[in-house]
Amino acid sequence: MGLNVLVVGAVALGPKVACRVKRLLPSAQITMIEKDCRFSYGGCGIPYFVSGDVQNIEGLCSTSAHTLRDELFFETAKGVAIRPRTEAVAINRKAKTVTVRDLRNGSDTTELPYDKLVLATGAEPMVPPIPGADLPGVSVVSNLEHAAYIKEKIARGDVNRAVVIGAGAIGLEMAEALADMWEVETTLVEMADQLLPQAIGPDMSLIVQHHMTAKGIAVRLSDVVTRIIGDPETGVTAVETRTTRIPCDMVILAVGVRPNGRLAAEAGLAVGRHGGVIVDQRLRTSDPDIYAGGDCIEMPHLVSGERVPMPLGSLANRQGRVIGTNIAGGQARFDGTVGSFCIKVFDMGIAKAGLTARQAAEAGFDPVYSVVAQADRAHFYPSHAIMYVKLIADRATRRVLGIEALGPNGDAVKARVDAVAALLPYRADVAAVCNLEVAYAPPFASAMDIVNNAANVLDNILMGYNDPIDVTEFVERFKEGQTKVVDVRGAPESKKFREKYGEDRWINIPQNELAGRIAEVPKDQPVCLICDTGPRSYEAQRILQANGIATTKNIQGGYGMLSRTNPDF
Amino acid sequence: MGLNVLVVGAVALGPKVACRVKRLLPSAQITMIEKDCRFSYGGCGIPYFVSGDVQNIEGLCSTSAHTLRDELFFETAKGVAIRPRTEAVAINRKAKTVTVRDLRNGSDTTELPYDKLVLATGAEPMVPPIPGADLPGVSVVSNLEHAAYIKEKIARGDVNRAVVIGAGAIGLEMAEALADMWEVETTLVEMADQLLPQAIGPDMSLIVQHHMTAKGIAVRLSDVVTRIIGDPETGVTAVETRTTRIPCDMVILAVGVRPNGRLAAEAGLAVGRHGGVIVDQRLRTSDPDIYAGGDCIEMPHLVSGERVPMPLGSLANRQGRVIGTNIAGGQARFDGTVGSFCIKVFDMGIAKAGLTARQAAEAGFDPVYSVVAQADRAHFYPSHAIMYVKLIADRATRRVLGIEALGPNGDAVKARVDAVAALLPYRADVAAVCNLEVAYAPPFASAMDIVNNAANVLDNILMGYNDPIDVTEFVERFKEGQTKVVDVRGAPESKKFREKYGEDRWINIPQNELAGRIAEVPKDQPVCLICDTGPRSYEAQRILQANGIATTKNIQGGYGMLSRTNPDF
Repeated sequence: MGLNVLVVGAVALGPKVACRVKRLLPSAQITMIEKDCRFSYGGCGIPYFVSGDVQNIEGLCSTSAHTLRDELFFETAKGVAIRPRTEAVAINRKAKTVTVRDLRNGSDTTELPYDKLVLATGAEPMVPPIPGADLPGVSVVSNLEHAAYIKEKIARGDVNRAVVIGAGAIGLEMAEALADMWEVETTLVEMADQLLPQAIGPDMSLIVQHHMTAKGIAVRLSDVVTRIIGDPETGVTAVETRTTRIPCDMVILAVGVRPNGRLAAEAGLAVGRHGGVIVDQRLRTSDPDIYAGGDCIEMPHLVSGERVPMPLGSLANRQGRVIGTNIAGGQARFDGTVGSFCIKVFDMGIAKAGLTARQAAEAGFDPVYSVVAQADRAHFYPSHAIMYVKLIADRATRRVLGIEALGPNGDAVKARVDAVAALLPYRADVAAVCNLEVAYAPPFASAMDIVNNAANVLDNILMGYNDPIDVTEFVERFKEGQTKVVDVRGAPESKKFREKYGEDRWINIPQNELAGRIAEVPKDQPVCLICDTGPRSYEAQRILQANGIATTKNIQGGYGMLSRTNPDF
Repeated sequence: MGLNVLVVGAVALGPKVACRVKRLLPSAQITMIEKDCRFSYGGCGIPYFVSGDVQNIEGLCSTSAHTLRDELFFETAKGVAIRPRTEAVAINRKAKTVTVRDLRNGSDTTELPYDKLVLATGAEPMVPPIPGADLPGVSVVSNLEHAAYIKEKIARGDVNRAVVIGAGAIGLEMAEALADMWEVETTLVEMADQLLPQAIGPDMSLIVQHHMTAKGIAVRLSDVVTRIIGDPETGVTAVETRTTRIPCDMVILAVGVRPNGRLAAEAGLAVGRHGGVIVDQRLRTSDPDIYAGGDCIEMPHLVSGERVPMPLGSLANRQGRVIGTNIAGGQARFDGTVGSFCIKVFDMGIAKAGLTARQAAEAGFDPVYSVVAQADRAHFYPSHAIMYVKLIADRATRRVLGIEALGPNGDAVKARVDAVAALLPYRADVAAVCNLEVAYAPPFASAMDIVNNAANVLDNILMGYNDPIDVTEFVERFKEGQTKVVDVRGAPESKKFREKYGEDRWINIPQNELAGRIAEVPKDQPVCLICDTGPRSYEAQRILQANGIATTKNIQGGYGMLSRTNPDF
């Protein structure tokens, strides 16, 4: 008899562990149990199945060679047994068995023995404690059953108006799927005052928000759903928030997930403050014969140092390999996460790694950041487009804490974030990103690439050469009459603003004329400097500083950032 | 009087230094001299100007805000003086002056004093010592004059057939520019036995070669140009190689560049074995008042440890900022290069960082590599395309030495290479790439991304689980009848090959049936295993090993790699 490995949960991490162990240790006997009838699927593909990008549910359950990953596949191709519709009820660590219930025939339980046990119990979607959350037409999005339910209902033509609750990744992806492909009138409701509050800063999120609004999604921020209204027979008819009532035929709950650590906790294994199983670098729980990984664990955040859940299929896969190696007698490690993230929202790619400025402050850092607008390839190359990068560092140590990026070319956005993400575990400082050797050719990058420039600007800010103001703060101050603008672009670019806001509030002095026109810079009020994307206003600020005017603020990301975050400015 | 800074050379690094110093130290007096009449241009954009992607030469000489970077621009916007058509003849380090010659009025020389001198003398294109290299219609591609000459000649309709000598980046880009936009019948001649010999391995280069051939470029490898034939009045008519004669109206010489360290050497500054100026981490030469950077220096290669020239506009820009900071009293460093590189060749993006396997062996490592074919995003996401990644590590230390990648989406290719490039200075090992936290969402990546899988495969090879064979070596062995193939795909995919090579040489046993059909595996000859892209043949190899058959070889990158490198196989 070979090693007996029991895997609880068969979506992402479970199958990875099972197949890896079997490859390394062919004598092992491996059984996966899964409470659902579907298993080994790409859960992150659900929004693309709902939208129709992925036509059949089998597309999410097949290998890249188009083989369906069903029970026969696991048995014959992988040598792994799988028991779907089987729930783990309890772990008996002393006896080294798991009590399981066969959900197909009711309440019968049996004991499955193990030498090594793997907990791949995933996460549970949170359901807000509001009336009506159980009405027909209200659904979370956490497995293929939900996906099939939602898509069937839409495909039948039953859904004209939908409300998506929660503006994290799944909320945004589902909103797009509904509105874009099915032309469902979609409202997105979020408690926080911005989209993607865990992923990006408020300035970057404004760009996403305007993009979604332009695509027809109604976005309601800082609002809380209090009730879902409808009939237990015919289903949901409206969502009531603190401020309004939104008629709808479908409600998608996407308010987040919680690690499913119940089984572990009940067995006396260590569980963290988020409810996730606690593991070491080998991904062993507090019982050395029990491993855990994927959405059900907490892991070290390599920037903040805190233990966090990070429910991503990518991490589950990498952790699965580590567990498989270790069960087979190897010495693989998983040290933690830097929180890399990306998402496509209509025609925009958004990515981040590390901490946002707010998260950095919460973690005890003193965050300073740059915001840079620049072409995603050589500005003379025809297909270039402006992208936006925000780079965050700790003031005292200059350690890079995070990066956020967005733009029309998601691969180009991701390229910049992935390169900086790779540095984060090494506690790299800003200078490392100034010199970060991203590959260069005009069709793919600038000679001084946006990611280098983001670091250069941040370095200038940390050195006190560049005295920046956030575009959001600028807009507030300007609207309240607390600052004037010196626009250092040419006369044509500044014309619209001079006419709208008056020549005395929006003063035009082209940067190349500034040295000779210092006297025209207002002294009666603070001054903010603006150009297209930032370099000329920085140059202007240096000229003013050299001439004894040290109080100006340089608008980060320039007019590019202003126009994208405040299109009606 | 402020600090007097003299900059010799005003293309990429020179202007960056000048402007940076002026911003940090407004009191500085900065003069750039440039022997050509054009300056501050994007030299890497020349192929795109020739092709017509960039319409006017001014496009390469303008800022992203469309301002021409002429003498007035540098004077008024940057506060920097520039003297074009002025050549530095000698450095008098004791007197701290540079003897310069005004090329507009002949031989007059004057002495320009400096407090700090910057050498940005660039590189010189190599011209092969063959008869006819000076004929009309023969041109190197190293400045805008060459670019204008080439484009004018083509635009006049004078060029029907061209020969490009040298298959490095510039050779490939120029070949594309000529053939794609102008439909010039183009032949590429290269001395080495592969395209891009400095950048990628022979297997990867075969894919590029077939792509270029399919686009109409005639590729002649392992051939040497012995003579260029033509008339001193009417110009070139043919290129003669060791093996053939190619009629043509234009010849592009793209055989490489050499650091221009003459001025430095003559002044007694330390110069390396490649002829480049030797600098320290502050980019100071052996004279602390003289800095150098860009194409004229040698810099540490952070993987090989050797001092190498790395003539790239991107490095020149980053080094320019470092020099500017240091001249202004700061403490910036440039530690070296990891040799990041990318190029677009028609509809293909190619990128690399670190060392190729050959370069690694030359540098004293014991290189082992994986080759992985995988979709560049989730395989169920509609717009996915297969890309190829080669990951190279040192056998004993498992240190990652290099990565090569190519595919139809250049941004996606670059994303993978840039992320690994970021790790190279930290001497990361293969495990770091197994767990490399590239951002994941189905539109942009796989849950187990290709870059992670490349490391997983390499780890399996290093552990002895995966016993690989290079596709090139396999083809040789198979053609010589030294190996049989067990094709572990389904019957339909293997049909063509069974018919072509015979059922006894190309045996089909689907992977999921292999465990029960071990007896059918040939024992009389070595066996190579193949599937679509590699995972199933690996799985098959493990099954065979578990059944006592330990001699099979697994074809790296599977049929994907075989079909792309050997389309007529």
